[in-house]
Amino acid sequence: MNQPLPPPVRAAVLASPDYPFSPIDAPVKLDQNESFADFPAPLKALALQRMQQLPWHRYTDLHAEELTAAIARHDGWSASGTVATTGSNVLIALLVQLAALGGRVLTVKPNFALYALDASLLGAALTEVPLRADHSLDMDALIAALGTDADTNAPAQPRGVIYLPRPHAPTGSLCELDELDRLARACPGWLLVIDEAYHHFTDTDARALARQHPHVVLLRTFSKAWGLAGLRLGYALASDEVARQLRKLVPPFGVSVLQTVSALVALEHPDYLRERVAHTRSERERLFKALQRHPTWQVAPSHANFLLVRTPDAARAHAELLAQGVLVRRQDSLHGLQGCLRVTVGSVRENDAFLSAAGL
Amino acid sequence: MNQPLPPPVRAAVLASPDYPFSPIDAPVKLDQNESFADFPAPLKALALQRMQQLPWHRYTDLHAEELTAAIARHDGWSASGTVATTGSNVLIALLVQLAALGGRVLTVKPNFALYALDASLLGAALTEVPLRADHSLDMDALIAALGTDADTNAPAQPRGVIYLPRPHAPTGSLCELDELDRLARACPGWLLVIDEAYHHFTDTDARALARQHPHVVLLRTFSKAWGLAGLRLGYALASDEVARQLRKLVPPFGVSVLQTVSALVALEHPDYLRERVAHTRSERERLFKALQRHPTWQVAPSHANFLLVRTPDAARAHAELLAQGVLVRRQDSLHGLQGCLRVTVGSVRENDAFLSAAGL
Repeated sequence: MNQPLPPPVRAAVLASPDYPFSPIDAPVKLDQNESFADFPAPLKALALQRMQQLPWHRYTDLHAEELTAAIARHDGWSASGTVATTGSNVLIALLVQLAALGGRVLTVKPNFALYALDASLLGAALTEVPLRADHSLDMDALIAALGTDADTNAPAQPRGVIYLPRPHAPTGSLCELDELDRLARACPGWLLVIDEAYHHFTDTDARALARQHPHVVLLRTFSKAWGLAGLRLGYALASDEVARQLRKLVPPFGVSVLQTVSALVALEHPDYLRERVAHTRSERERLFKALQRHPTWQVAPSHANFLLVRTPDAARAHAELLAQGVLVRRQDSLHGLQGCLRVTVGSVRENDAFLSAAGL
Repeated sequence: MNQPLPPPVRAAVLASPDYPFSPIDAPVKLDQNESFADFPAPLKALALQRMQQLPWHRYTDLHAEELTAAIARHDGWSASGTVATTGSNVLIALLVQLAALGGRVLTVKPNFALYALDASLLGAALTEVPLRADHSLDMDALIAALGTDADTNAPAQPRGVIYLPRPHAPTGSLCELDELDRLARACPGWLLVIDEAYHHFTDTDARALARQHPHVVLLRTFSKAWGLAGLRLGYALASDEVARQLRKLVPPFGVSVLQTVSALVALEHPDYLRERVAHTRSERERLFKALQRHPTWQVAPSHANFLLVRTPDAARAHAELLAQGVLVRRQDSLHGLQGCLRVTVGSVRENDAFLSAAGL
């Protein structure tokens, strides 16, 4: 009866690939850069106790006001410049909508898949500037890729969004803050988004830069150092005006009472975070040194909770590790990462299992 | 040092208003069409117990596969055609991105604020067809508003998205299914989205229509009859192909372990849902009859968990109710709803408080 019509879906969506992830079960899971340990048991118990007492049939805050205020206090930022939502994944898409729809997305390659995917899905023109062979940022090339205002058809519109992860994923490299400052000065008319998902695992962050430049936005998450990937919470630190506009795009009443309470408990007890970061940095060093002794692999220095390892054959190395119960992530389809695997820094036991499976 | 530049934000966002909601505290809260009762205590306890046992530091399913399968079983739909995410609010925005970016959003007025707001934020051309004075859908006018394919600049692209709530909010009216079928046949090239947030409170739903027409999408939520507004979960029932494309836009790993477990517990124990719907329908009838006796107010028949009441002066009626501890929602700024308030059907005690405050 119905003739077969193409689904009424935009061509850019039809042409976009699925998110590149296929779940694999393994005893030692080092493939998603999760924390090596669950939310501490006493904090989980406290969060569950509060959930029990709160109503679940009432809508939550319009814009997660209570949670936002607690994040802002913890991170030393203004509450009015803080925007919390269900994962920084969500914010990456919303920032394209805020400033790159009909414009450009500029980033580097190799890279976290979602920046390019959201650009593609939403029809923004994508430019990916290659990292240098040592994984460092080629800032001259990035600034050259900005082009000029004359390229823009609608001068009243923003030019687009620049996404830079710092530390960079999946290489673990860290660009210098004065290089970022040079970029920020060169790109008025763009939103410059620094994705700080892994910032806890290094000694620096870009808040000073964002305070100085109102077009700089920082993205942060509870999924990595906080050990709450299952909670789905991320946030942006921005200028008050950019945050006010971004909030228009955030779904109203968007953060559940369960997520809110759990994150509040975490923010009230941040000591575990520091202990875990110290553990991860120490284990990262141990893994790095051990991997340097591998006969055929090369390991890159990392400022995050993972290490990038170049092997002669990523498919084979991945399969051999998995056969011994250790799951890591292949990255060899990304630009310049032939043979590469990404290994999360796990618990001592998990890291031992990985080293043993790697013959080290 | 920095010259004051406009924020690099799209003009459509700058021009869009904030979401129209200001929280007010009151002992009797009948302003957000929430359920009259919390998630049942034994189910809450069961959900909390499962949360305690699950890891919070691991990412969840890529596309909430376990939850989606349970929803599909409960709703009699295919899992591959079911897309779950953190609130149907999220899906409303994603469906604009799927099929209306650079195209059109067609809906009715008065209406739930978000359809028009998302069209405005994402730069889709908005057409709102007025309901008739009796709140019924003017289907001839709606079909006329579709225009012709010749209006479209890019024929390979979809025409846009049509949003119709059924039952309609905030009037509570219910359009006939055969009228919807007429619309579905008239709008190939569009996504026809039936928002069934309130479908539990009536005897019909549009699944048969959606099975017959692959461009029809149903939106459903755990926020109303399920009594889980604080949980933030909604979903779409669609054809497998539309669902597959929509899933590309849904943030990966988007639903938290806490939300997933709670909704699974609800879906395993759906009996409370039926009891609550029966309560709400019976109380809706009681309120309707009582309100018909009001000397100056008119009440509209409703198929949802709220009633629309026209008063001589909405600001005054709202303030007088609030002075007696009863919070309802003003709707008098919406098209054709001068003097109107929306009152959620609450518990017996809450409804008694409302009637008493209204002098009934």
